[in-house]
Amino acid sequence: MPEIRTDPITGGRVIIAPERANRPTDLVAAGEPGTGGPCVFCEGHEAETPGEVLSFREPQSAPNAPGWRVRVVPNRFPAFEQATQPLEPVERIDFFRVQPAYGRHEVAIESPRHLVSITQLSQQGVREVVWAYRERLAALKEDSRLVYPQVFKNSGLAGGASLEHVHSQIMATPFVPGGIAERLARSLTFYRRHTQCVFCDLIRRELAAGERIVSETPEYVVLCPFASRVPYETWILPKAHASHFEQISSEVAGLLALVLQQTLARIEGLLEVPAYNYLIHTSPFDTSPLDHYHWTIEIVPRVTKVAGFEWGTGIYINPVPPEDAASLLRW
Amino acid sequence: MPEIRTDPITGGRVIIAPERANRPTDLVAAGEPGTGGPCVFCEGHEAETPGEVLSFREPQSAPNAPGWRVRVVPNRFPAFEQATQPLEPVERIDFFRVQPAYGRHEVAIESPRHLVSITQLSQQGVREVVWAYRERLAALKEDSRLVYPQVFKNSGLAGGASLEHVHSQIMATPFVPGGIAERLARSLTFYRRHTQCVFCDLIRRELAAGERIVSETPEYVVLCPFASRVPYETWILPKAHASHFEQISSEVAGLLALVLQQTLARIEGLLEVPAYNYLIHTSPFDTSPLDHYHWTIEIVPRVTKVAGFEWGTGIYINPVPPEDAASLLRW
Repeated sequence: MPEIRTDPITGGRVIIAPERANRPTDLVAAGEPGTGGPCVFCEGHEAETPGEVLSFREPQSAPNAPGWRVRVVPNRFPAFEQATQPLEPVERIDFFRVQPAYGRHEVAIESPRHLVSITQLSQQGVREVVWAYRERLAALKEDSRLVYPQVFKNSGLAGGASLEHVHSQIMATPFVPGGIAERLARSLTFYRRHTQCVFCDLIRRELAAGERIVSETPEYVVLCPFASRVPYETWILPKAHASHFEQISSEVAGLLALVLQQTLARIEGLLEVPAYNYLIHTSPFDTSPLDHYHWTIEIVPRVTKVAGFEWGTGIYINPVPPEDAASLLRW
Repeated sequence: MPEIRTDPITGGRVIIAPERANRPTDLVAAGEPGTGGPCVFCEGHEAETPGEVLSFREPQSAPNAPGWRVRVVPNRFPAFEQATQPLEPVERIDFFRVQPAYGRHEVAIESPRHLVSITQLSQQGVREVVWAYRERLAALKEDSRLVYPQVFKNSGLAGGASLEHVHSQIMATPFVPGGIAERLARSLTFYRRHTQCVFCDLIRRELAAGERIVSETPEYVVLCPFASRVPYETWILPKAHASHFEQISSEVAGLLALVLQQTLARIEGLLEVPAYNYLIHTSPFDTSPLDHYHWTIEIVPRVTKVAGFEWGTGIYINPVPPEDAASLLRW
């Protein structure tokens, strides 16, 4: 059973999840050929995963049977457990604090076919992936014990993936993670000082400067952030202020899918299909629309390694200026 | 010229250092044979590095010539530049803040021979490496513009190393990095509440519990921390309260070298020579001995990947409980 521990020195939380050591893997080093499937995520293997919590499928097809296009299932090796309770610590010691890891950990299988990149999906396929995120967030929000959702994709070995079949993950925690709490707090401080959303201000300034813009549509801006932590770090932001990802409309989801897929295609083309992560930053479930916070998608190519200086200090050293990255990625 | 940028959303600092893209590398994937040398760090190649700032060498030998045992040189591809000034920002804009990356970036070459692990050095060799750290910190402290030193080792490709010849690095920054400032602030809060150093309290509690202890000597304790972020994360702490690493005595440095080498040998043996980082946490140069802070060495084996959830939330998922790790590493 996974548990949440808090470091007595730093206050940082970790999840100790021994079950995850048993995860199977079919991933190989970059450049080596993949398995080509089939695998547990492929159509026809539905019985090899926990039962689906969401699927987009053919009208005549039955749950947990072939006929689906996108399928969301609980992770078989979860970092969070639904079968526990969040608010009563198993053991409450001031110094060494342990809490049960209540939460959700789901896998969004993005295609019934053994594809390995979201760029191989049709535009409609990516739209359904984005819509599955929205649907699951809206559903998880109904559980008042869950406070924060983290949608993310690990792609490639260096990105922390263990299976090559195209998929992403959704976790929901009973607390706001430290890194998110800090973003929210700083954004609120900015809002109080300047009476505007720091993200809206950032978008305005970046569009005016232009040098870090990768692309712009009427709805979205794609840019390499000013203080990029890694080479080719890229953010996608909605131009209109919006704090909660689960409130996107179906139409906007389709436009986002287009921008997300095109951005990833540019990154894959330029960096020869690198390992990468993307993640969606959004607002906690227990908040109303926030004037000071803005949902964003962060794409983090994993072409450099996190080294000792970064571990020690939290400061990243990035050899590629975001202005250069944006100019190479621009479309 | 590298520059320090501050992210307008998170307040996090990054160093944009395009020069570092030109670093040569001779590292290969795990399992593949290394070059075996010779390389720019080998004895006889002294002219291929910047001139030494410290060496321990034979009495008759000349600087930047053979005859050395440990040699510290400026990094040829520095993340920080000495030839600039720290306190006058090149450009001071509230939103997008850029500062010149004043600081030091040095390489400690740990052997004249083309060895690839510090565990291959003699005990006296490791003692001289530890002593070189102390000597350089004591020297860098003389520059009142430098505020914080970070000693670290990147070992192996996944650890962020670019050269296999056994070495470590010393950086000194003109500010206290965010991650360090947070440790200091939390330790001070603990001290004010409990009138004792949180590290001293941790050592006492861990020795009493025993289950996370890897080893204990009269001077040091080696343990896997309660909230280990990664499998086999290991800390070395001096039992006697000490806030500044550069104040260790020569005798204590010898004992530390023994403990450091033995701990790394256990990790290399158990994990089949993994990539890893180690780093020394110490107190800012501009502080007197601190009652609330304690220097430590953190060893971070790199056997798992940092994935999307960690990037998004700052929360690590660790499949190996530190109690299991300590029991396997114990000697």
